[in-house]
Amino acid sequence: MDFSYNPKTQDYLARIKAFMAEYVEPIEDKVYSELHELNPDGNWQNWQVHPAMEPLKQKAKDAGLWNLFLPDAELGQGLSCSEYAPLAEQTGRILFAPEIFNCNAPDTGNMEVLYHFGNEKQQAQWLTPLLNGEIRSVFGMTEPDVASSDATNMEATIALEGDELVLNGKKWWSTGLGHPHAKVMIFMGLSNPENDKHNQHSMVLVPLDSPGLHVKRMLTAYGDYDAPFGHGEMHLDNVRVPKENLLVGMGKGFAIAQGRLGPGRIHHCMRAIGMAEKALELAIKRGHSRVAFGRPIIELGGNKERIAHARMAIEQARLLTLQAAWKIDNLGVKNAMVDISAIKVVVPNMLQEVVDMAVQMHGGGGMCNDFPLARLAAGARALRLADGPDEVHMAMVSRLELKKYK
Amino acid sequence: MDFSYNPKTQDYLARIKAFMAEYVEPIEDKVYSELHELNPDGNWQNWQVHPAMEPLKQKAKDAGLWNLFLPDAELGQGLSCSEYAPLAEQTGRILFAPEIFNCNAPDTGNMEVLYHFGNEKQQAQWLTPLLNGEIRSVFGMTEPDVASSDATNMEATIALEGDELVLNGKKWWSTGLGHPHAKVMIFMGLSNPENDKHNQHSMVLVPLDSPGLHVKRMLTAYGDYDAPFGHGEMHLDNVRVPKENLLVGMGKGFAIAQGRLGPGRIHHCMRAIGMAEKALELAIKRGHSRVAFGRPIIELGGNKERIAHARMAIEQARLLTLQAAWKIDNLGVKNAMVDISAIKVVVPNMLQEVVDMAVQMHGGGGMCNDFPLARLAAGARALRLADGPDEVHMAMVSRLELKKYK
Amino acid sequence: MDFSYNPKTQDYLARIKAFMAEYVEPIEDKVYSELHELNPDGNWQNWQVHPAMEPLKQKAKDAGLWNLFLPDAELGQGLSCSEYAPLAEQTGRILFAPEIFNCNAPDTGNMEVLYHFGNEKQQAQWLTPLLNGEIRSVFGMTEPDVASSDATNMEATIALEGDELVLNGKKWWSTGLGHPHAKVMIFMGLSNPENDKHNQHSMVLVPLDSPGLHVKRMLTAYGDYDAPFGHGEMHLDNVRVPKENLLVGMGKGFAIAQGRLGPGRIHHCMRAIGMAEKALELAIKRGHSRVAFGRPIIELGGNKERIAHARMAIEQARLLTLQAAWKIDNLGVKNAMVDISAIKVVVPNMLQEVVDMAVQMHGGGGMCNDFPLARLAAGARALRLADGPDEVHMAMVSRLELKKYK
Amino acid sequence: MDFSYNPKTQDYLARIKAFMAEYVEPIEDKVYSELHELNPDGNWQNWQVHPAMEPLKQKAKDAGLWNLFLPDAELGQGLSCSEYAPLAEQTGRILFAPEIFNCNAPDTGNMEVLYHFGNEKQQAQWLTPLLNGEIRSVFGMTEPDVASSDATNMEATIALEGDELVLNGKKWWSTGLGHPHAKVMIFMGLSNPENDKHNQHSMVLVPLDSPGLHVKRMLTAYGDYDAPFGHGEMHLDNVRVPKENLLVGMGKGFAIAQGRLGPGRIHHCMRAIGMAEKALELAIKRGHSRVAFGRPIIELGGNKERIAHARMAIEQARLLTLQAAWKIDNLGVKNAMVDISAIKVVVPNMLQEVVDMAVQMHGGGGMCNDFPLARLAAGARALRLADGPDEVHMAMVSRLELKKYK
Repeated sequence: MDFSYNPKTQDYLARIKAFMAEYVEPIEDKVYSELHELNPDGNWQNWQVHPAMEPLKQKAKDAGLWNLFLPDAELGQGLSCSEYAPLAEQTGRILFAPEIFNCNAPDTGNMEVLYHFGNEKQQAQWLTPLLNGEIRSVFGMTEPDVASSDATNMEATIALEGDELVLNGKKWWSTGLGHPHAKVMIFMGLSNPENDKHNQHSMVLVPLDSPGLHVKRMLTAYGDYDAPFGHGEMHLDNVRVPKENLLVGMGKGFAIAQGRLGPGRIHHCMRAIGMAEKALELAIKRGHSRVAFGRPIIELGGNKERIAHARMAIEQARLLTLQAAWKIDNLGVKNAMVDISAIKVVVPNMLQEVVDMAVQMHGGGGMCNDFPLARLAAGARALRLADGPDEVHMAMVSRLELKKYK
Repeated sequence: MDFSYNPKTQDYLARIKAFMAEYVEPIEDKVYSELHELNPDGNWQNWQVHPAMEPLKQKAKDAGLWNLFLPDAELGQGLSCSEYAPLAEQTGRILFAPEIFNCNAPDTGNMEVLYHFGNEKQQAQWLTPLLNGEIRSVFGMTEPDVASSDATNMEATIALEGDELVLNGKKWWSTGLGHPHAKVMIFMGLSNPENDKHNQHSMVLVPLDSPGLHVKRMLTAYGDYDAPFGHGEMHLDNVRVPKENLLVGMGKGFAIAQGRLGPGRIHHCMRAIGMAEKALELAIKRGHSRVAFGRPIIELGGNKERIAHARMAIEQARLLTLQAAWKIDNLGVKNAMVDISAIKVVVPNMLQEVVDMAVQMHGGGGMCNDFPLARLAAGARALRLADGPDEVHMAMVSRLELKKYK
Repeated sequence: MDFSYNPKTQDYLARIKAFMAEYVEPIEDKVYSELHELNPDGNWQNWQVHPAMEPLKQKAKDAGLWNLFLPDAELGQGLSCSEYAPLAEQTGRILFAPEIFNCNAPDTGNMEVLYHFGNEKQQAQWLTPLLNGEIRSVFGMTEPDVASSDATNMEATIALEGDELVLNGKKWWSTGLGHPHAKVMIFMGLSNPENDKHNQHSMVLVPLDSPGLHVKRMLTAYGDYDAPFGHGEMHLDNVRVPKENLLVGMGKGFAIAQGRLGPGRIHHCMRAIGMAEKALELAIKRGHSRVAFGRPIIELGGNKERIAHARMAIEQARLLTLQAAWKIDNLGVKNAMVDISAIKVVVPNMLQEVVDMAVQMHGGGGMCNDFPLARLAAGARALRLADGPDEVHMAMVSRLELKKYK
Repeated sequence: MDFSYNPKTQDYLARIKAFMAEYVEPIEDKVYSELHELNPDGNWQNWQVHPAMEPLKQKAKDAGLWNLFLPDAELGQGLSCSEYAPLAEQTGRILFAPEIFNCNAPDTGNMEVLYHFGNEKQQAQWLTPLLNGEIRSVFGMTEPDVASSDATNMEATIALEGDELVLNGKKWWSTGLGHPHAKVMIFMGLSNPENDKHNQHSMVLVPLDSPGLHVKRMLTAYGDYDAPFGHGEMHLDNVRVPKENLLVGMGKGFAIAQGRLGPGRIHHCMRAIGMAEKALELAIKRGHSRVAFGRPIIELGGNKERIAHARMAIEQARLLTLQAAWKIDNLGVKNAMVDISAIKVVVPNMLQEVVDMAVQMHGGGGMCNDFPLARLAAGARALRLADGPDEVHMAMVSRLELKKYK
């Protein structure tokens, strides 16, 4: 075993840290508060891109820190899942940073789908502008009327009528739907109810300006729209797209989803580890700087033990995630499914605890937008549901374990 | 020991449950979403009282369910702390309900201060309209620039100049500051630095329209303004009030605070128990109604054990709180200080866990304002900091325990 | 509600505390170490009664502190379940103390069965000597070859042949089987497989010297025999007893068990609360007396918070248990079933945590028999299994909760 | 990063697994019960070596699976700390197995001390027979009268008188003292009180048959002597050894201890991970084989989630430990101190939880010696104290963390 990052990773890591330090960290507080402060005159309600973003994106592109997530050496940087993971951690430290490197969810996952499963025409139309950071995309999977933890519950429908696919149903928690550059959705729905359970659904590319596609509302997640990306509820009422918009083939939805979710969960988790590191840093700094009962609060009661617990939890979660990434690279996604489920439980729960501790160390300041902690808490909490709730992933982990002795 | 409520309590409990069922629960969802949905055209940014409130307040007054918190038989309902506690639990089930009964924080605490420590003139000017529900009030204690967990850190100043008290400093997390009816603040500041640590501060009544008093901003608490009450940051710049506005005497701030906080914490905790009961109810209902993998989700994995844990935690927290209330009534606040600190730790932590479980059972729905869970989560989290963080209260509990064997 | 003990309880409480202080505490360490130190020449392997016991029993009898558990005013002290509960807590503080007051498990439960369900002859033969403390008894329920968490799994059989009942099967974890005074067992077995699930089993009185009854071995519980009571494994091979030894009637086993278990679990739990108080006391004393890094260890790191947590957990557990006792007294065992299940989960888990903390505070001393902590840890752990594992009781709690909204 | 074991490790791992499967596992239950069953005629009280051990040791030696822990290629197998770690995990699965490979504590640590710090004569006299498995050794550090968590508290003394060192004081929890082959102790005591805190103590080699060295008693750890090794209390009363028995030099005790503890903690932790794997395996097997309420108990309630939690916790703990081992190999013990402290907290706590779950799954069987779980529970608990309690190690972890932002 070798626990050191390889030279390529080290090089990218140094460069991304330098980029963050030079360009992103100095404007972090200002951009953060402009995105999240609910000032009536503020930015959120206009769902505009923050003016700092496009120049930063250009800088990242120029610096060769662009599409880091994509293993392809021409379209991305040729980084394996393990090589990208430590970079994702760095971008995760600031909530709005991943977009700067064109490495934000759900676009990364959507680009992966198009890269692996899109045909040439689909790639030309949607993958290229996504890789260029010119447009944004959404993923239409979760539905409001059923327990989406069981994906086979999905009720939205896809029907082939002549040369067209006709889409009906409701989707919500479609992240990115508020973004002014959002142009396309990967929509998943029930197309082949006659097939067995995991071959009944298909994925279709749907332009967001399609007639019949109604953005019903944008949802707050723990009180915030997370603008300009946002999370939306859409109703599709006989939305028609050409049958060329189908990905791979009818009934192939789950097969595609499997491929999509592996690396995406590594990315999510590594960003979450970056968030945890940031929260821990903030907790310690606050603990050093505030005084109560004659001593810095970091030295009071069990606070130092809380710091130790956070450090130990973060280290373990990172190693587990890096191991899962390594398995994806070396054994394939299929042989890493349990590992991917495990990190999907471990990391968000760890993040939730670390952030909660950091909030407590900040007192009232931790609850408002003077610090990113309230949004990190929301992010941690959401991540325990998004992409499958803890319980579904634990079931996956235990299933394999139980089989060993049957 | 007798674990049954006395007939008087049972009577009020039946009446308040009936009132809630008839008037409040039917409009719960509508009012809740209007208060918390961040629609650009919505109510929050105007900081207006919801139109449903004044009629409901009148109904509660007519029904004799008014000022239930105040032990005085003429001004309130003559209920002891233990007798009021189960009623507070009921009002706590709906976030906007306590105001209907004129039993909402921070007005209850402020009325108690005026009742116990205000002179006749102060009571006529401020207590009477507060008891009538005509005005609202705020409490100015927490400060942004110091660790307020140690109240002796307070830096805002009160200086006697001739017949006037001159106030300077900053306060934040002043709940209720956004309410259009908010007219007065009880302000606490450093007035007698020459005295010993717990006799250096005073409390002063400050009209909110005093020159020099600037509402700097309203704070979001986990993403929400909690309008129309809200939580504000105020800067006081040479605010002058007549010296008659002083409560009790110079240096008496902590003495007053001690008296104020006991019953107030019982109220907070009992409302929190009501919130936990509500969250548990929602969790079970959701668990019954959603199906995954062929079964109602309440029956999957460890969900039933989670319900059992919630029930056991709620029961224990309630008993501990009722015991603390009983001690206040029978042994006096001073002899209940440890019990009051204990519930201040136990109840919010219990609530945080129960709500977190309920959110998980709701999936995405739990994160947005389709359910009150996101705000209950915020409320639980805030209550672990408000009125002293967990750590300060645990220190109080352990101090007494350690003394037993010294 | 009234959280004070009534005068009768207060009187008994004062007397039992005085008795413990005068007669039991002074010999606690000596007796404890003699019972638990595994010296090859020591007492354990001889399964003898410690010489201190009989004189102490006589003293308790003389002081009117005898059979406190039995509500009957003539045979016991006429104390209700709630009145006895605080006394059980006191006796629980020292592991060998309950026997002194003739209030130790499993004899108390067995006496209750005989008191409520035994006929005159059965009572004369077995209840009277048990109430006199002349003999000891065991309860034969748990079996080695099935999951006893589901009592209907029980495989031991009871067959009526002429005037005799013929018993076959295996039982283990029969506490008290090692005691030299143990004379009788209440044996439960499958007698009426043709009946519905809860009317298939019967209870029979079995003299321990019956031919065919083999004590296969005594079991260690976490390394200790808990002599002289011990926990045994018995094999019954065509054991024959007269049919008069049947309790109540064929198929009435579960009906009797229900009645037996309610008060018995209160007793168990209150003793466990006494154990927790003892462990907390030891932790604080040790924490005060040992110095590391220049300060008493109680003041280091999170130790004081641990003390606070223990205090808060004990208080809550005690209130929950007292409430369950009150419900048994006032609403009947049937209406207290959920409460009884709840304390059966809450109290042993609380005890396990408090003892674990106390062990940590003691360092190596906590692991050996210089302190009672290792046995308290074993007792806590065992209590999470005895009388039904946590999981079965949680299922009971959740069942009722789920029904509320069905 | 590379998460695969190198070929050398894989080869040894395959061989050790094969050895365990062929020779150790078949006799596991028999030897375990003979060592731990407290039968009056049993082995424990005679403190004899189990007859199975010496033949197995010879087999391991013949198989080249001997002294695996020692990095030296001639005296050991030339395995680095990381290469040995996975082997230690395998030997940890069965409590009595490490001795078979001459890899048991405390001999491994003592051999390391002699290897790194002993002079030629000391090595010839003690290291050689230890490496041959002919004798056993103990380590005299912890003392009964002081908080040993602060090692500078040590009160035993070492005085140079002429050519002799005179030793006085008490030691306890000296593991291995009961072993009939135990011949030598590494004794640590206060020799140079005039020096600064970490240069006041020395280490001396003391034959166990030295006059004045009294084995006061053997201690039970959670009810068991852990014979034949055992844990002893010794009193040293003017014990005299030649000054040549001093290791390195006067005042060098802590310097030696530092070097000793690093790899030793890796070994401890990896064996503990093996124990956890064993406990998890037993839990699942039991859960499959027992039926309650109509289903295998593994499928009831939250049991499957408990299995998932155990798997996720074990994986994380192993990775953290392997990383610490890798840092020792690649960056040196000094630069791995925080990592070593972290695993010393994480692994035993993880083990305690996993074993507790496994006990619960076993019901009564988990408490007695029919399964190794009770001893695993004791081992886990002890490991949270041995070699420094959790709290001391957390302090080390937090110290470094706090420094980052000072």
